[in-house]
Amino acid sequence: MRPADDLRDVFEAYLGSLELAAELGSLETALRYALEPGGKRIRPVLCLAVAEAAGGRMEDALPAAAAVELVHTFSLVHDDLPALDDDDERRGRPSAHVAFGEGVAVLAGDALLGEALRLALSYDDPAIARELVEATLGMIGGQHRDITGDDRDLAEVERLKTGRLLDAAVGLGLRVAGVPEREQRPWRAFADELGLLFQVVDDLLDEDGFAERLGVEGARRLAEDAAERARERLAAVAADTGVLRELVDELAVRTA
Amino acid sequence: MRPADDLRDVFEAYLGSLELAAELGSLETALRYALEPGGKRIRPVLCLAVAEAAGGRMEDALPAAAAVELVHTFSLVHDDLPALDDDDERRGRPSAHVAFGEGVAVLAGDALLGEALRLALSYDDPAIARELVEATLGMIGGQHRDITGDDRDLAEVERLKTGRLLDAAVGLGLRVAGVPEREQRPWRAFADELGLLFQVVDDLLDEDGFAERLGVEGARRLAEDAAERARERLAAVAADTGVLRELVDELAVRTA
Repeated sequence: MRPADDLRDVFEAYLGSLELAAELGSLETALRYALEPGGKRIRPVLCLAVAEAAGGRMEDALPAAAAVELVHTFSLVHDDLPALDDDDERRGRPSAHVAFGEGVAVLAGDALLGEALRLALSYDDPAIARELVEATLGMIGGQHRDITGDDRDLAEVERLKTGRLLDAAVGLGLRVAGVPEREQRPWRAFADELGLLFQVVDDLLDEDGFAERLGVEGARRLAEDAAERARERLAAVAADTGVLRELVDELAVRTA
Repeated sequence: MRPADDLRDVFEAYLGSLELAAELGSLETALRYALEPGGKRIRPVLCLAVAEAAGGRMEDALPAAAAVELVHTFSLVHDDLPALDDDDERRGRPSAHVAFGEGVAVLAGDALLGEALRLALSYDDPAIARELVEATLGMIGGQHRDITGDDRDLAEVERLKTGRLLDAAVGLGLRVAGVPEREQRPWRAFADELGLLFQVVDDLLDEDGFAERLGVEGARRLAEDAAERARERLAAVAADTGVLRELVDELAVRTA
C-alpha cells in the first residue's frame, strides 16, 4: 500500500500526460489551466486508494480517478461563473472565466465533463460510466438547490453537492477492483461519513453551512463524530485500509 | 418503414414521457422547457430512420435518438448564453437563460448533457455512449473555434459544430441495429453529405457562413450537389432507405 502522497504524485503525473480529444483544438489550453496542480486531489486519491485496498491494481484505476477529478473540475469552472457563485479566484489564481473569458469557460466546463465521461468509458464495464454520470446529475441538482435558495434541508444539499461525487470516487475504485455490488455496502457507508466530514470541515473553514447552523462548537463535534464513524466503517472492511484512514485523518485536520 | 412524420410523433411522445434523474429536483422544469416541441427533431428522426432502415427495431433506438437530441439541446442552451452567441429567443420563445436566469441555464445545459449520456449508457454496448461523447467533444471544439474567430477553415468548423452530431445520429442508429463497423462506411458517407447539406441550407437561411463566402448562387449549387450526393450514397446502401431520402428532400427545401 502506497501512502496518500505517493498516490497523489502518481495521479499528478498521469493527469499531466493525459491526451485530450484532438478536436478540442486550442480549447485544450483552458482545460489544462483548470486542471493544473494546486488542488488537494482528494477524490482521485480516494479512488486509487480504495481500488488498491480492495485488491485491484492502482494503475487500472487511474482513468477512473481522472474521470472523477475532471467532473469535479468541470463543476468548479461552471460554479465560479459570474451567473453562479461569481468567484474570481480559484486556488490563488484567476478563475477560468477571468483568465479566458466567460464563453470559453462555459465551453471548457462542458468539455471537461465530456472528457470525464470519455475516460470512464475507456473501461469495458459501462457500470463505471453509469455511476459517474448519475453522481454528476445529483451534484448538479445540489448546486441548483443551492443557487435557488432551496436549501431548507442543508444536509441533503451537501450530500448532493459534495457527497455524490465522493461516493462515486469510492464506487469507481470498487468497480475497477471488481468488488461485486453486494460487497460494496460497508465501503459506501465509509464514503457517506467521509463526505459529511469533508463538508463540515469545509463549512468550518468558510464559516457557513453547518458552521452557521450549528455554531462552531456544534460543527466541530459533528466533524469529529463523522471522522470517528468513518474510521469505524473502515475497521469493518476486511482489507488493509491504512491509506484510507490516513485520508480521514488528513481531512479531519485540514486547514484549506 | 414509417414515414418521417410518424417517427417524429413517436419520438415526441417518447421524449415527453422520459423520466429524468430525481435528484435534479426542480431543475427538471428548465430541462423540459428547453426540450419542448418546436424543433425539427432532425437528429433523432435520422437516428430512428437509420436504425429501422438498417434492420433494427425503431423502438430500440428511442433512447439513442433522445440522447442525440439532448446533446443538441444542451448545446443550444449554452450557445444562447450572453457570453456566447447571446440569443434571447429560440424557436419563437425566450431562450432558457431569459426564462430561468443565466445560472440555471448553465446548470440545465450541464444536466442535459448528463442525461444524454445516461440515456446512451442504458445500452449494454459502451460503444454507443463512446461515439456520442466523442461527437460532443468535436462539437464543443467547433463552437470554440467559432467564438474565438478561428474559422479560417469554415468547412472544418461546420463539420465539427453540425456534422459531428449528425454523424453520431447515424452512427448510433447503426449501432443499435447491430451493423458492424466494417459495414458502416457507406452510411457514414451519406451522413457527411447530409451534414453539409444541412449546414449550407442553414447558412442560406441565416445569410452567413457558406452563403457569405460563396454568394447565394454558389451556396445553392453546393446544397444541390450535397443533396444529390446524399441520394447517391443512399442508393449505394443495400436497404430500403425511402424515409432517409425523404429526409434529404425535406432538408433541401426547408425554409426554417
